[in-house]
Amino acid sequence: MKKVTTTLFLSLCAMSLAMAQTQPAKQTPESSEIWEPVPPVITPGTTGPNASGISAPSDAIVLFDGKNSDAWVAARGYSPDSPSIGRLEWPITDGILYSTKGSSARTKQEFGDFQLHIEFKTPEKVEGNGQGRGNSGIFLQGRYELQVLDNYNNATYVNGMVGSIYKQAIPLVNPSRKPGEWQTYDIIYNQPKFNKAGMMMEPAYVTVLLNGILVQNHVAIRGTTEYIGYPKVKAHDKGPLILQDHGNPVGFRNIWIREL
Amino acid sequence: MKKVTTTLFLSLCAMSLAMAQTQPAKQTPESSEIWEPVPPVITPGTTGPNASGISAPSDAIVLFDGKNSDAWVAARGYSPDSPSIGRLEWPITDGILYSTKGSSARTKQEFGDFQLHIEFKTPEKVEGNGQGRGNSGIFLQGRYELQVLDNYNNATYVNGMVGSIYKQAIPLVNPSRKPGEWQTYDIIYNQPKFNKAGMMMEPAYVTVLLNGILVQNHVAIRGTTEYIGYPKVKAHDKGPLILQDHGNPVGFRNIWIREL
Amino acid sequence: MKKVTTTLFLSLCAMSLAMAQTQPAKQTPESSEIWEPVPPVITPGTTGPNASGISAPSDAIVLFDGKNSDAWVAARGYSPDSPSIGRLEWPITDGILYSTKGSSARTKQEFGDFQLHIEFKTPEKVEGNGQGRGNSGIFLQGRYELQVLDNYNNATYVNGMVGSIYKQAIPLVNPSRKPGEWQTYDIIYNQPKFNKAGMMMEPAYVTVLLNGILVQNHVAIRGTTEYIGYPKVKAHDKGPLILQDHGNPVGFRNIWIREL
Amino acid sequence: MKKVTTTLFLSLCAMSLAMAQTQPAKQTPESSEIWEPVPPVITPGTTGPNASGISAPSDAIVLFDGKNSDAWVAARGYSPDSPSIGRLEWPITDGILYSTKGSSARTKQEFGDFQLHIEFKTPEKVEGNGQGRGNSGIFLQGRYELQVLDNYNNATYVNGMVGSIYKQAIPLVNPSRKPGEWQTYDIIYNQPKFNKAGMMMEPAYVTVLLNGILVQNHVAIRGTTEYIGYPKVKAHDKGPLILQDHGNPVGFRNIWIREL
Repeated sequence: MKKVTTTLFLSLCAMSLAMAQTQPAKQTPESSEIWEPVPPVITPGTTGPNASGISAPSDAIVLFDGKNSDAWVAARGYSPDSPSIGRLEWPITDGILYSTKGSSARTKQEFGDFQLHIEFKTPEKVEGNGQGRGNSGIFLQGRYELQVLDNYNNATYVNGMVGSIYKQAIPLVNPSRKPGEWQTYDIIYNQPKFNKAGMMMEPAYVTVLLNGILVQNHVAIRGTTEYIGYPKVKAHDKGPLILQDHGNPVGFRNIWIREL
Repeated sequence: MKKVTTTLFLSLCAMSLAMAQTQPAKQTPESSEIWEPVPPVITPGTTGPNASGISAPSDAIVLFDGKNSDAWVAARGYSPDSPSIGRLEWPITDGILYSTKGSSARTKQEFGDFQLHIEFKTPEKVEGNGQGRGNSGIFLQGRYELQVLDNYNNATYVNGMVGSIYKQAIPLVNPSRKPGEWQTYDIIYNQPKFNKAGMMMEPAYVTVLLNGILVQNHVAIRGTTEYIGYPKVKAHDKGPLILQDHGNPVGFRNIWIREL
Repeated sequence: MKKVTTTLFLSLCAMSLAMAQTQPAKQTPESSEIWEPVPPVITPGTTGPNASGISAPSDAIVLFDGKNSDAWVAARGYSPDSPSIGRLEWPITDGILYSTKGSSARTKQEFGDFQLHIEFKTPEKVEGNGQGRGNSGIFLQGRYELQVLDNYNNATYVNGMVGSIYKQAIPLVNPSRKPGEWQTYDIIYNQPKFNKAGMMMEPAYVTVLLNGILVQNHVAIRGTTEYIGYPKVKAHDKGPLILQDHGNPVGFRNIWIREL
Repeated sequence: MKKVTTTLFLSLCAMSLAMAQTQPAKQTPESSEIWEPVPPVITPGTTGPNASGISAPSDAIVLFDGKNSDAWVAARGYSPDSPSIGRLEWPITDGILYSTKGSSARTKQEFGDFQLHIEFKTPEKVEGNGQGRGNSGIFLQGRYELQVLDNYNNATYVNGMVGSIYKQAIPLVNPSRKPGEWQTYDIIYNQPKFNKAGMMMEPAYVTVLLNGILVQNHVAIRGTTEYIGYPKVKAHDKGPLILQDHGNPVGFRNIWIREL
């Protein structure tokens, strides 16, 4: 009897398995699992005494860590085409890089899509008004300016505020810290795409957190930042970061970038 | 013993079923079927002697079918706030509505997200140059102008060409037909979203086919169309369509809209 | 006196010009004009007896014009990796290419971002039900299927309907024409972007008009079309178009593509 | 003569002004300034001993600050429709809320578009493997799960990793901290849009930073999170947050949300 029982057992079990294969109810949790591609492991940074945001993760390119400005050159103006004018002369004091000397700071390296972290503080001693107070800027790909400004109790045109894509996109809120306090930018940037005819097929998109608060949410950038006149559209590939000197000594620290 | 055997059998079968539940091979084609929501059935339009594109599908609101302009009123200017100035006096000749008389044509009804089909022809007799030739326009939600212009061998600024979002977005190509020939616009429009503070959380997006050719691909509209100066951002809900009279008698026919 | 008058005149004029330069009110319509890049001029196609949509515009690659299938090869299955199995044996009758013979039709050329126009008709004699009636498909980049099906009074799972991205995206409406009638697809496709690690940084996006009606609006495609199981994500560059033979003789005509 | 001269002078000046109006050079920096709407001023949070990210900004709704769980109720399962089963019994120890007791934690309040900050730590004592180690989850609008898992040296299917939209979107990288260490999520979420027919006109979009590192970049969510089977599409408006108890005591702190 044992043998018979076993045979019957196997037959019945086979039936139940065959039915399992044809009935939709038999889908399993495993059906919807995907096992590749495996996301690369990286070590995130940490917060600490010299950072108001996290320090560079393991896959980041450190652009400034308080020691030297070797990743940068001096340049005139805020254009990806302006030639280097030599070694960056911005002073580093107590691990802080200060915008000054009338030159821009441009990265040696160029970037496409990226995540950028940068910390800044505007002068503790308040001088000037509107655009004249604590003004600097971060030119993404050397073309598209994310404004840096002391907007703490300091009104200006809203498309020129801190958190704005200068003269293109108004920030959602104004989460400014006081002059002299460290502020953080976390920026997600996707570069524009152009076709062979030079037409912009897709604009650049940018998402920005200022002091941890969303100020730009996947916003399209339609063209270059222009102080006077309209954004210009010109095909390009990778570009550098440029920090602006606008005559106010704005301090920078903990600058890192991850290529996406 | 029988009882024992049966118990063993059931236990083993339960095990095999449990294993079946954990084997990915048991998924079926039916696992990935979805049966609702069911897309509404609609009857598409057809092409014919009075249309260069298809006629109104069954779920469309017909805004002009060649017979009357009852869906429209006359208005001054191109603003959603400009009051009606009475019955639209644009003439209808041979089933064609001609822009003229110095007034705009505004729909009585207002729209949010939509698909719009519209056919136009610029004057066969060519007069004027640049913006002065065959100029009209379609103001989406009464605010954002999709340019209508005779750009056949007629240069103008590229953000003011036919197919442009006027002074905001350059068309990808120029697929203009000759003056006097019928041309078609197929427009997919998603209105902007604003939050309680009046900030634009998401811009309007527009995709445009001109004569069946892609000229705008999911392009963000950053603000109102302005002849002089920069786009303005002001929170709004639904808005009308407005057709422009720019002093050139541009003919329109086969105008229908589907609310999305 | 003449000299004095002239001098005074020039001084006053200079003053008026200087003021013009500093007053915002002096912005002009020309301020917001952009003159380049100039969109390429193309000649759009026309409608006619052998097309239910427009024929190929001047910048299109004609994939089938009714005469021969030289742009295609035969292939097994629906994968960009399935090798050619020689000349396509699908018959051409009265300018119509019919899916049959158990092979797929694959373009020799590969594409990235594109606009695709294609016309199809399912068999006038209705046979079968659900997925068994008038079934074919268009594999974008050889991977992502836009379904072709006779869905006129023929229910099936909604993510497998005509107008669906097969088993991924439900169409917004069902604008099917009757069996045996010509139907048109106008497709705007942007390929996915992958980074060096093979992660998908941006999905493919697709917009689809079926018979002139919007059925997919800038929809993200998350991975490959799979009959059984889940979409797969695998980095790739350009890919071919593949037309499916699903055992029903579906006719195709007027196939053209524009690289964006 | 004087009169003649003056007349000539005025005429010429009028001419020069007319020309000024047509010369693009007359635009000014002020032309491109926008002064409203003014972004609301908010006070950002700070980092401190009880937070690995910043604390709640002034416009946030605090969902958990270490003192009580009054913003939450207990619920069964992870569905926006599962009814409350009373007061949440998850213990609070040293200002940390621990998932346990077999119930979910659901917010009393419901949300549409939002920015969410949440900190979590998986058990320092490592037990289990794959999905069995440090598993919890955050259901956005009660429907779409952002996975919480101990993925430090712990492989699992990649669409079920920490940082994944569970069974829908693979994270770009794996920036996990060690078990027992605090980790942070910063989440930007835009809810899906549905039309009257119940069709999804626009999917939900989500951007996620895990430990300050981008893991999801404006990713479309196609439907509900399902453990077995495919995402479902069902129209809805606002929804709650739900935290999962998966049998592992995961700790949470510093939870705040900003309605966008």
